[in-house]
Amino acid sequence: MFTLGRLIRSTSTSNIIAKRPLRLQRVSFVRPFTHIPYSSMATSKINKWVDENQSHLIDRLAKAVGIPSVSGNIAYIKDVERMAEFLIEQLTELGVKAETRPVGKHQLDGKEVDLPPVVIGHIGNDPNKKTLLIYGHYDVQPALKEDGWKFDPFTLTVDPEGSGKLYGRGSTDDKGPVLGWLNALEAHKETGTELPVNLKMIFEGMEENGSDGLDKFIESEKDKFFAGVDCMCISDNYWLDTKTPCLTYGLRGINYYEIRISGPDRDLHSGAFGGAIHEPMTDLISLMSKLVSPQGEILIPGVKDLIAPVTKDEQEKFEAIHFEMKDIHDAIGGDVTLTNDTVKTLMGRMRNPSLSLHGIEGAFSAVGSKTVIPCSVKGKFSIRLVPNLGIKNTTDLVIKYVNDEFMKLGSKNKCQVVLTHGGEPWITDPNHYSFRAAHKATETVWGQAPDYTREGGSIPITLEFANILGVNICLLPVGRGDDGAHSTNEKLDTSNYIQGTKLFAEYMHNLAAEQA
Amino acid sequence: MFTLGRLIRSTSTSNIIAKRPLRLQRVSFVRPFTHIPYSSMATSKINKWVDENQSHLIDRLAKAVGIPSVSGNIAYIKDVERMAEFLIEQLTELGVKAETRPVGKHQLDGKEVDLPPVVIGHIGNDPNKKTLLIYGHYDVQPALKEDGWKFDPFTLTVDPEGSGKLYGRGSTDDKGPVLGWLNALEAHKETGTELPVNLKMIFEGMEENGSDGLDKFIESEKDKFFAGVDCMCISDNYWLDTKTPCLTYGLRGINYYEIRISGPDRDLHSGAFGGAIHEPMTDLISLMSKLVSPQGEILIPGVKDLIAPVTKDEQEKFEAIHFEMKDIHDAIGGDVTLTNDTVKTLMGRMRNPSLSLHGIEGAFSAVGSKTVIPCSVKGKFSIRLVPNLGIKNTTDLVIKYVNDEFMKLGSKNKCQVVLTHGGEPWITDPNHYSFRAAHKATETVWGQAPDYTREGGSIPITLEFANILGVNICLLPVGRGDDGAHSTNEKLDTSNYIQGTKLFAEYMHNLAAEQA
Repeated sequence: MFTLGRLIRSTSTSNIIAKRPLRLQRVSFVRPFTHIPYSSMATSKINKWVDENQSHLIDRLAKAVGIPSVSGNIAYIKDVERMAEFLIEQLTELGVKAETRPVGKHQLDGKEVDLPPVVIGHIGNDPNKKTLLIYGHYDVQPALKEDGWKFDPFTLTVDPEGSGKLYGRGSTDDKGPVLGWLNALEAHKETGTELPVNLKMIFEGMEENGSDGLDKFIESEKDKFFAGVDCMCISDNYWLDTKTPCLTYGLRGINYYEIRISGPDRDLHSGAFGGAIHEPMTDLISLMSKLVSPQGEILIPGVKDLIAPVTKDEQEKFEAIHFEMKDIHDAIGGDVTLTNDTVKTLMGRMRNPSLSLHGIEGAFSAVGSKTVIPCSVKGKFSIRLVPNLGIKNTTDLVIKYVNDEFMKLGSKNKCQVVLTHGGEPWITDPNHYSFRAAHKATETVWGQAPDYTREGGSIPITLEFANILGVNICLLPVGRGDDGAHSTNEKLDTSNYIQGTKLFAEYMHNLAAEQA
Repeated sequence: MFTLGRLIRSTSTSNIIAKRPLRLQRVSFVRPFTHIPYSSMATSKINKWVDENQSHLIDRLAKAVGIPSVSGNIAYIKDVERMAEFLIEQLTELGVKAETRPVGKHQLDGKEVDLPPVVIGHIGNDPNKKTLLIYGHYDVQPALKEDGWKFDPFTLTVDPEGSGKLYGRGSTDDKGPVLGWLNALEAHKETGTELPVNLKMIFEGMEENGSDGLDKFIESEKDKFFAGVDCMCISDNYWLDTKTPCLTYGLRGINYYEIRISGPDRDLHSGAFGGAIHEPMTDLISLMSKLVSPQGEILIPGVKDLIAPVTKDEQEKFEAIHFEMKDIHDAIGGDVTLTNDTVKTLMGRMRNPSLSLHGIEGAFSAVGSKTVIPCSVKGKFSIRLVPNLGIKNTTDLVIKYVNDEFMKLGSKNKCQVVLTHGGEPWITDPNHYSFRAAHKATETVWGQAPDYTREGGSIPITLEFANILGVNICLLPVGRGDDGAHSTNEKLDTSNYIQGTKLFAEYMHNLAAEQA
């Protein structure tokens, strides 16, 4: 799953102009695939093997979790390398032609070091089969026992109370899903089942720390390693709740802004100067108050008009999502939702833009009291973007509005509005054959149709792959909504790990069988 | 001069009710003093001695500055004690009956230690003379050479460029003024001049760290050590500019508030929840924007109506102040004053209330970007109080208004408004005989009439003395507006130190001569 660090990976202090126009991914296939019929016999063999080898598969996850591959801390640099090697060994054993590839250097804790390499691999090269690209990451967030973990975070621990929860850093984000693919490959190998698709894979070791180097790698390998990819599957997000599998077909983008107000050239004492000067905080708070209403309505003229209208298909998909208001009340720890309508709530989180005021840099922010007039303050807010609110058209509206409102204040201070980061929204076709395959696989494995969700946050690497490779991407989560990626006591339920392995196998077989 | 720490010395999270009603100090004297005629012969002898003994007097200041009596750091606890002993020795030599008195214990850097003692002394007990109480402090702010000092901060250094500036921590705040009194006593002793008043003195060692223990000491000694005090003089503030002496007769008070908004029980990711919930920051920013206009106008209904009307005498005193807009533009480093009218600017700083928005606790405040929805935020603002805006009547208006405005938002979050600190404004009669005496002394020593100023900030200990002893207090500064108390390269001009000594002597003689 994405990190905040990664959300904000590309930063510019100038007004960014969207490099790529926002578009729905529409991929046309000119290559006729041989129709490979779906074989329930093949998958039932696989499923049987998976069920019978659960402890072996959990042991694989235990080995991976045991390697503290924290990408954001130089102290773990060898562990990150070790994790890449572990994957290469495992993949090679499973018949995958796998290798690590360097993606450049970066500054880590003040030292210039190699970026963690990407692990790439491929198995199968049959022109009659579809070629599926999978992505995952082998690095993890930091974790310390003393942060509040019940068990050592780098020792996979089966819940002694019998819930089946597998605790450990990386269990769900993203080692469990990555190994799910390896497990599926092993199941094919051990049961003598032919892989129904050509499989290409890329596992990065820098996801939790900004995915540096990955976009350049994708770009440079577009027509080499990535040549011939028909569609892509990423398993790095989660179910919306704890009981309903889902397929994810959209992500909101984000524009992060700073309103910078400056006045005096030094911080002043409010006793000495309060009542005599234009205080930057007064101007800033006034401007920030004009961005969004307490009902969550974005007050910037023109923004609402840009939002793509809701289609019938979308409406139906949102109405079908298994979701109760209790779910969000539990998740946020309080009954402070804008509405008690489930569909409006889901659309608010997933398909409508939102504007959040995050805080102020330069003002007093500590506990206690300080009678300062800050000389220069930066108000931070972001707008979650959706089709057709892009980086540029939204920014044009924001800058004009804030500057116009500032002029109305009649202040002698200076005001500047800066887009510090822009990430486009992403949406793909949820009726694509890859989604149909994932849908059927979910029904087979979990006995129920999946919800069709969008993520309210951004997963920038999805956008990079979509833009550069131009393929449909199905986000197919393994873990549940309460797995606690990035938190203490991160876990993956045994059932999700085991069923997730089957899901991937079923998905590949359905993918092969679906008419492109 | 006061510290921020001291401004906020009494903190309560409940809504404080003003303990003492706001009042002008009106002191009636029932005791007829013998009229002691002003003797220019006496003071000219004294002035001559002072001029001839400048290096001796500067040496005294050098000894004092050489003792790093930093009250806010346990590492200097012995130096603070040593500074008290130094004063006792000096005072005793000058014929003052001086002693240290304990004022309790406090926590310093995590250890419970004795508070620095107060040094009290008295000289003269003639019922026919007025009794003057003087206050000063012997502790200083921290200072390290590496903070940007040109010279060692604890070695008094005469500017080698010949400006006459005496650099050193405590030179102007407040060792120079304290020693000015000692110098004046020595001049009387050495010239065989009778002291025209009975003099009581209290020098504390905790001013820069909250004056803890002092209020209780004043209260407990009200009818003992402080019995018979007729008026008080404090030299612990500064001229408004660098060339015009002033007398200070008022201080603004301060009410410090927090608006606390809470919603969810944990911080949330704006990707996951933006657009679905009432965000506490949105409510807070909306409320904060309704407190003060960009033109500095307080928007809380009823506040303006409470302000005492400007009297003709006040108006004249403000109009007479030597002040140019350039002075404040230089002081703040920019032309962002609300007006270019000097009187309006001075009244804005000194006699009118002001409302400053200081910052927000709980929101994102660092450099960079973070897409957090803070679950609980505290907006901090303060109102500078003036007659007749007291702690309680102002707070009643603030709480009602903020709560009313919050109700209008239609938010499900919770809102609480809390007064975290209250300090009443203080004003005294600038036509009192003590001010008349200080006025004449200023004309004699500096060759010009003083400005009559008020401080925009608070000096809480002034209020304590005024309330408990019920006497007129003349704030009679020695240093200039650019002395840089609390800053690096704090200095006192030699002329201010030497003339300040004469000013105190002249003041005492004029005080004796003035009709009560």
